[in-house]
Amino acid sequence: MDVAIVGVGQTPFGDHPGLGVKELFVRALAGLEGDVDRGWDRDLLDAAYVGSLSCGQGLQLGNFAPALLDAAGLPGVPALHVENACASGGFAVQQAVLAVASGQYRCVLAAGVEKMRDVSADRGRYWLGVSGDTEYERLAGLTFAGVFGLLATALCADGVIRREDLARVAVKNHANAVDNPDAHLRRALTLEQVLSAPQVASPLGAFDCCPTSDGAACALVVDADLAARLSDRPVWVAGIGAAGDRLALHARPDLGRLAAAGRAADAAYRSARVAPDDLDVAEVHDCFTVAELVAYAELGLCPLPEAGARLGAGEFDLGGRVPVNPSGGLKAKGHPIGATGVGQVVELVHQLRGDVRSERRQVPGAATALAYNMGGSGASAAVTVLSRERAA
Amino acid sequence: MDVAIVGVGQTPFGDHPGLGVKELFVRALAGLEGDVDRGWDRDLLDAAYVGSLSCGQGLQLGNFAPALLDAAGLPGVPALHVENACASGGFAVQQAVLAVASGQYRCVLAAGVEKMRDVSADRGRYWLGVSGDTEYERLAGLTFAGVFGLLATALCADGVIRREDLARVAVKNHANAVDNPDAHLRRALTLEQVLSAPQVASPLGAFDCCPTSDGAACALVVDADLAARLSDRPVWVAGIGAAGDRLALHARPDLGRLAAAGRAADAAYRSARVAPDDLDVAEVHDCFTVAELVAYAELGLCPLPEAGARLGAGEFDLGGRVPVNPSGGLKAKGHPIGATGVGQVVELVHQLRGDVRSERRQVPGAATALAYNMGGSGASAAVTVLSRERAA
Repeated sequence: MDVAIVGVGQTPFGDHPGLGVKELFVRALAGLEGDVDRGWDRDLLDAAYVGSLSCGQGLQLGNFAPALLDAAGLPGVPALHVENACASGGFAVQQAVLAVASGQYRCVLAAGVEKMRDVSADRGRYWLGVSGDTEYERLAGLTFAGVFGLLATALCADGVIRREDLARVAVKNHANAVDNPDAHLRRALTLEQVLSAPQVASPLGAFDCCPTSDGAACALVVDADLAARLSDRPVWVAGIGAAGDRLALHARPDLGRLAAAGRAADAAYRSARVAPDDLDVAEVHDCFTVAELVAYAELGLCPLPEAGARLGAGEFDLGGRVPVNPSGGLKAKGHPIGATGVGQVVELVHQLRGDVRSERRQVPGAATALAYNMGGSGASAAVTVLSRERAA
Repeated sequence: MDVAIVGVGQTPFGDHPGLGVKELFVRALAGLEGDVDRGWDRDLLDAAYVGSLSCGQGLQLGNFAPALLDAAGLPGVPALHVENACASGGFAVQQAVLAVASGQYRCVLAAGVEKMRDVSADRGRYWLGVSGDTEYERLAGLTFAGVFGLLATALCADGVIRREDLARVAVKNHANAVDNPDAHLRRALTLEQVLSAPQVASPLGAFDCCPTSDGAACALVVDADLAARLSDRPVWVAGIGAAGDRLALHARPDLGRLAAAGRAADAAYRSARVAPDDLDVAEVHDCFTVAELVAYAELGLCPLPEAGARLGAGEFDLGGRVPVNPSGGLKAKGHPIGATGVGQVVELVHQLRGDVRSERRQVPGAATALAYNMGGSGASAAVTVLSRERAA
């Protein structure tokens, strides 16, 4: 696509009781400015996309993106708020890519921000619950943990996955997060701890669920000329894919799938002209542990019935065949809704540049990477393939 | 840009007590399907953008766009909700244009929908008020009528415009709406009636303010190959431009301007390689009458101090030099927030195809048209130039 990323920034994901959405955005942007090799001339910025679900819990529901750019001292830039629930960030990245690929814009900011941690439990549930089906699920009392509990129950009942497989996702991702200074939950967990945690929505326990995090992340997306001018080590967007699905679980033909992810991945692989076997590293949407196991299958990394065994054999660990969620994933790095998908790209840009600030977390020689971000209970998905090399 | 529009549809704007956002969207889409010359194969649809501010007053705040596509029987299509307050629709159109221009997608739906009419006055004010500055304006009690009242007060005090000039905008736009079956307020007003209406925010009276409307609108944006395949009379996107501005009025250097509109128009004219004199017809954002007068200046149609006199001389009437808001504008066609900017494009596509269903409203031989959509109190603006002819 001849579109590159030349700088990334993010706040630590987690508790930020003293920072609102504007402050989080400004801090992530400051990180990005320090990350562009030859400095970033702010006058270059043509447009911005900001992913967010709750917009600071309704503080600024309208003109949310212009409000953030204003706070950052960039008020003239056309800025647009985009929302696809938990996939808002992944879609923000893709809009920036499309805008540059169109030739209309040369330098576009993709950002995401969310302020989740200091809302009351009731409001937090409200903002999350509004992303799935309304009539048949939310108003009937089904939470997101309940949605993914149903998915896990169906797959366990069919013998496709086991309770221990779910727990191993949490163990792996928590282990990865320990050395990530931007991660929300930086502590290792044992299989025992995950399995004995209080149950949230059978079979999912507390440690099968991602935390509720504050955070912001951003990436600077540019054309090939600007990439050469601004950076010694641009990361190239090899391809993108996105898809939708029915919202209500009962309306989908197979409860054990997240079909939008599969369709988005197929489109991204076609767009990038790569196959799953080409991937060196991936950040995938693990809002609940079961979602990561299903993601292996939807992304073509392995058939779903083999997911548990392959995870157990270390294929997706750091040092394995294709490390998944080296950042810790939503599960341990955290899940500030709108920022999550952009944060995946932040992690992968560092992986492809080889400058992860932790030898243990760096995937050696990573050349091709995939980010998969999902919205709600799977009604939207965005998959982006990044590469160290510019397409021929 | 080699991007065309081959079909449009909209619901009537106004009172729809029995229809929610999903039903409104489905009806607008049905109108579009009947408007594509050689029929629309739904399998062609690659992506969709949906502009909305309130998402059905929070019924479906997350995954709003996938929920609408699901309701329309198009659940697999990647769909994204975009929001820039009252400019959400104008930005949705531009994202569809960028997506097609990128080469990644060939057939993209741009849509907008809003359900405003049956909210309580309190909630309606809430959803609108959240689009301007929060700290210095909304929390201090400033409404949008107040914002535009301040703008009008400043311009009247400087002698740049007169109270009668404001009223003439309402008279013109109400006259235009009489023959528009999709308009919310289809009745003519006299200058006397406008001037003697109850005051809302000095100097603006009730008839200086647009109504609160329900509605949906959509447009099918395609590449040149599909344009030739699907349509005998595609309308071409000549160019687009967008801009932002500071949210708080006190932070802007000139209270009498809507500078984002000016910047967006400049960018659109450059992109389209046309000048204001080339325009045959325009739909402009007249949420309050004063906004249309300022728009004449920001769009380069005339200097602001001449706006009133030129309006009075009939330059912007049907049959005048460049008819503005032949649909009736927000003022009389109505303002279903997210749908408004897409509805402007619906009107202009009919104008350029010469198939407006009212001889009086049809601008004869219109070849070049401009749509200008503004967000909130002017912190975002999108300007799109359409043409009957494909760019050389």
